[in-house]
Amino acid sequence: MTVFDIVFQPEGKVVPAAAGLSILDVASWAGLHINASCAGAGVCGRCRVEVVSGSVRCETGPGAYFSEEEYGRGMRLACVCHVEGPAEIFIPPESRADASVFAKAEGHEEVTVAEPNPPVRELELALAPPTETDNLGDSDRLLAGLAATHGLEHAELALEALLELPDALRADDFAVRATVYQPVGEPAPPVRVMSVRPARDRRPAYALAVDIGTTSVWARLVNQVTGGYTPSMGDLNGQISFGEDVISRIVFADKGDGLARLQKRVLESLNHLLDRLLTEYEVDRDRIILAVVAGNTTMSHLFAGLSPKNIRLAPYVPAAAGWPTLRAAEVGLQVPTSTRLLIYPSVSSYVGGDIVAGVLASGMYMRPELTLFIDIGTNGEIVVGNQDWMTCAACSAGPAFEGGGVKFGMRAAPGAVDQFYFDPVARRHGLTVIGEPWAKPIGICGSGLISIVSELFLSGVLDPQGKFVPEAAPDFIRDGEDGREYLLKPQAETGLDRDLTITEIDVENLIRAKGAMYSGYQTLLESVGLTMNDLERVIIAGGFGKSLNLTNAMAIGLLPELPVEKFTYIGNSSLTGATLVTLSGGLWQKAQKIKDGLTNFELSETPGYMDYYMASQFLPHTQSDLFPRTMDRRKKKLVKLH
Amino acid sequence: MTVFDIVFQPEGKVVPAAAGLSILDVASWAGLHINASCAGAGVCGRCRVEVVSGSVRCETGPGAYFSEEEYGRGMRLACVCHVEGPAEIFIPPESRADASVFAKAEGHEEVTVAEPNPPVRELELALAPPTETDNLGDSDRLLAGLAATHGLEHAELALEALLELPDALRADDFAVRATVYQPVGEPAPPVRVMSVRPARDRRPAYALAVDIGTTSVWARLVNQVTGGYTPSMGDLNGQISFGEDVISRIVFADKGDGLARLQKRVLESLNHLLDRLLTEYEVDRDRIILAVVAGNTTMSHLFAGLSPKNIRLAPYVPAAAGWPTLRAAEVGLQVPTSTRLLIYPSVSSYVGGDIVAGVLASGMYMRPELTLFIDIGTNGEIVVGNQDWMTCAACSAGPAFEGGGVKFGMRAAPGAVDQFYFDPVARRHGLTVIGEPWAKPIGICGSGLISIVSELFLSGVLDPQGKFVPEAAPDFIRDGEDGREYLLKPQAETGLDRDLTITEIDVENLIRAKGAMYSGYQTLLESVGLTMNDLERVIIAGGFGKSLNLTNAMAIGLLPELPVEKFTYIGNSSLTGATLVTLSGGLWQKAQKIKDGLTNFELSETPGYMDYYMASQFLPHTQSDLFPRTMDRRKKKLVKLH
Repeated sequence: MTVFDIVFQPEGKVVPAAAGLSILDVASWAGLHINASCAGAGVCGRCRVEVVSGSVRCETGPGAYFSEEEYGRGMRLACVCHVEGPAEIFIPPESRADASVFAKAEGHEEVTVAEPNPPVRELELALAPPTETDNLGDSDRLLAGLAATHGLEHAELALEALLELPDALRADDFAVRATVYQPVGEPAPPVRVMSVRPARDRRPAYALAVDIGTTSVWARLVNQVTGGYTPSMGDLNGQISFGEDVISRIVFADKGDGLARLQKRVLESLNHLLDRLLTEYEVDRDRIILAVVAGNTTMSHLFAGLSPKNIRLAPYVPAAAGWPTLRAAEVGLQVPTSTRLLIYPSVSSYVGGDIVAGVLASGMYMRPELTLFIDIGTNGEIVVGNQDWMTCAACSAGPAFEGGGVKFGMRAAPGAVDQFYFDPVARRHGLTVIGEPWAKPIGICGSGLISIVSELFLSGVLDPQGKFVPEAAPDFIRDGEDGREYLLKPQAETGLDRDLTITEIDVENLIRAKGAMYSGYQTLLESVGLTMNDLERVIIAGGFGKSLNLTNAMAIGLLPELPVEKFTYIGNSSLTGATLVTLSGGLWQKAQKIKDGLTNFELSETPGYMDYYMASQFLPHTQSDLFPRTMDRRKKKLVKLH
Repeated sequence: MTVFDIVFQPEGKVVPAAAGLSILDVASWAGLHINASCAGAGVCGRCRVEVVSGSVRCETGPGAYFSEEEYGRGMRLACVCHVEGPAEIFIPPESRADASVFAKAEGHEEVTVAEPNPPVRELELALAPPTETDNLGDSDRLLAGLAATHGLEHAELALEALLELPDALRADDFAVRATVYQPVGEPAPPVRVMSVRPARDRRPAYALAVDIGTTSVWARLVNQVTGGYTPSMGDLNGQISFGEDVISRIVFADKGDGLARLQKRVLESLNHLLDRLLTEYEVDRDRIILAVVAGNTTMSHLFAGLSPKNIRLAPYVPAAAGWPTLRAAEVGLQVPTSTRLLIYPSVSSYVGGDIVAGVLASGMYMRPELTLFIDIGTNGEIVVGNQDWMTCAACSAGPAFEGGGVKFGMRAAPGAVDQFYFDPVARRHGLTVIGEPWAKPIGICGSGLISIVSELFLSGVLDPQGKFVPEAAPDFIRDGEDGREYLLKPQAETGLDRDLTITEIDVENLIRAKGAMYSGYQTLLESVGLTMNDLERVIIAGGFGKSLNLTNAMAIGLLPELPVEKFTYIGNSSLTGATLVTLSGGLWQKAQKIKDGLTNFELSETPGYMDYYMASQFLPHTQSDLFPRTMDRRKKKLVKLH
């Protein structure tokens, strides 16, 4: 395998990458997000990058996405360009989900990257040194200065700030920088001075933005002066060895010292991420003045050491939906004790702070278009609404999207089948496997499962009930130990000790999962008298969305069938939401308002949901008029066949 | 020595006491304060107690202070009644300084003992348990209840409260008691929920009121529900082994780990006092929800672990004058982490929180009479003013009042000469010694020194310059190793290895000390165009005041010569001020206003002070017209002599 250095600009990040990988994948591995609504299918045209130097192997010409001039100066789609030597790639702002959120928010009063207005700020003060006639105490002098210079009346000092104040004042002739926290509230509560240092210490302050997922944790550093931020870094959530989904974590937390162990694990993961960020970006730990954390309700509880047990007991009540402002160190983050911690508020037990952060990052709360926001996972969360109203719900999709409940299911890791293609004329198939070229498959990840079921359904190998049609693929369909199954690869071509197959039970599980999502969209829309056709925008967030093929997802009825241009993938919007709040106290207030404004539906208690759910247990749906194009594609494929 | 049990009511406190001790002294030793403006001289009539049962040996009959009826039912002056057997003594409210402060404050809007309105409160909430249609999170449910039931909008939970909330709610069917802290501010900042417990736990909450003195620490518990409080308990400030006065502590704090050691020592003393209080009054530690601390500026700094070094360097700037609200546990008090800590604000480096607390306790800030408030010590603090204005200053009196700088000086402990009488006709003297009957003297305490100098001056043995007049007492005045001296007791009658004497240098030191105080009163009065004769009230606070004989103190020029009825002794007003604040958030606001309203004079920088000081370096004063009665007494005594 030949490896070349790819340099991403403007970060200047150097990433060693194997020949043949797509630039989109290389950037993604390096934690540099590039928009790709079509998940790398080469159709959405949103992953525009500029090849500044070196060369890449590009599958397409200028075509629909570039003018001759743009193509001439190196503009390409990252998803169809592949590494063939060292290269320098510039990712323009419009191709970054995060950057585009900032750009979208620019018209908004609070967010400008150029002039951040963070909830924790550093203020410079040149105080008059005391004299015989002006011998105010140090703390009174500082507070008087804050009032006079910055209009901050009634400020109060934290003990840490007070303890370091006398020496800080005298180190630089009474010129200091004060780190000041402005709590949210009406009327605005007094600000709190968290720390003080001599003004000559000009190292900028940083915030830590964190997304805590059930599977993985992500974080980045945000420069509080310039508003610039580092790429995100991710790692597995160390809790994963105590259970894969939130329910198993809640059960574990309730036994013995389970809660403490889970809290310790996620903090180990986060502190390790923080160490890596500090080292890589050469930031001093004592310059972290704020941490903003977004996570689902259970993750937020476990992070704070708060028992989540009532989340899984009817009537499903979290201990905390809104969170008080805490000190990051009191929870266990390895930062100064003066560092504030803001935890994103949850709407309910199953619509958490990650979704509130995502809604903030998506901008849907301030736009007129009727929007569907989806985060697909074991618990798929959905939000429907616009600037005037918003409803939300959690769908118990089950673990199929993450490979759970599927015979050969696995996460999207090396060895997983992630794409599948069936040729109905030749009655044969091809598939791609994550990892090295020629890697042998060992399982099927969520997107692979969707790809397989979609292809087999469109090709007539699966019927609308999700049953195999043996005559459509007689070489592959057979009866196995778990009932009827489809042979993907014989044992010799796998990394397994047996054949790799997909069973009817697997298909059934996927249908249950996608149906839970789809009937959720329908229920929320119906609650306000609307239908799928009224949707003007669909926003897909979260890790799973990255590898989701829109066409496949529509074909199985996971996504509503709408024009592709209505879909946007916004990546880890939970982390983006956390990032935004580090830069704007106003957006933190907005987050509280989004939380308060989201009307939560408990789908299992909502009349009509069960009917929608039952109707969704088909491919793509009982009501085939909801999926006219899919039905049309299937008909055409079958016509071609016969 | 025969010891009897004396029972004090209404506390029911049993105190073993030696026969012959005065009831005033026994009560004082037990920490039960009884007013005694004349310091036990039997002349002010303020130490009225009732002998309920048993008997005491009383020196006086009904006389001026009691009707026949009162005397008949056992009313006596505590200072002239002596133990002669077991007895039960009732101390009526009017004889308690603290109680009288409460009584005085009764007309005031915030303070009524019957309905305390403490800054930290416990609120009962009967919340509706969650249902399928009402599944608000626990924290949101609590906050909604606080808003609906108690009108507290925008409350916030501390992490500890959040962690205990789920179980507390479910232990008693969603009926809870929330401990809520209401910070002071305009507009009022949001309240903070510090802890939550099941409503069925009906144990009352307590506050800890603390006075930290340079020499001793005092504390009591205050029942936050009834407003009742325990007697105070005192102990030596453990810092005393690192220096007797604040300056030596500041010097020690600046060396190596001196600051940490000093903080540790005072916390050991306080935690030990707290242990004793909790044990004696059977209060659970987890029921302490608030601590209020008053102390001088240096003691407050050392308590919080804050370097006091700039207090002794010009221009004498404390690190903290106003204090933020802290957690008592973060400083080191052994109380729950949720317990709030309020530290009384200081006015300046040498007018501390103990004085602000004293002014609050004295009520002078809300009365029309022109008042002089005095706390005599190494640093004597004085306040002059009334409800409309107040000025203050610290006088560097030196250590003479506490026995420092005096050849045989010592604290008011067993073996100290505390009273002295000279018979100018017979040319002989008598003296009393603190401790067991027939105890041999080993030194002279501050009040003894004042008594000696006063008697010798009135008798003509000392001239106005503080020099001995040998012919007035030829048997006692002699030349010693430190210059001219007066023989108090020959070695055989002392507990020493040499004669007990008082030297001219000792007298000089006392004159310097008393002059520093007196010229302070004059400077503050002059700053507003007033004189001693305008004073309507003199309040004496602090431990030294307890043993101060008013007549002696006026005779040497330590106190202004005014009618005795203008003087009041209010005991440990620093502790009283701390106690009051535990019961009233309004008074805490008042304390901040007192601090802001006190105009501080740095006497050494004030024009005229040095002139006053120089003029004060005589007995009683260069301007003898300021002390007409003293001069008259001296003349009469001398006439009797010649």
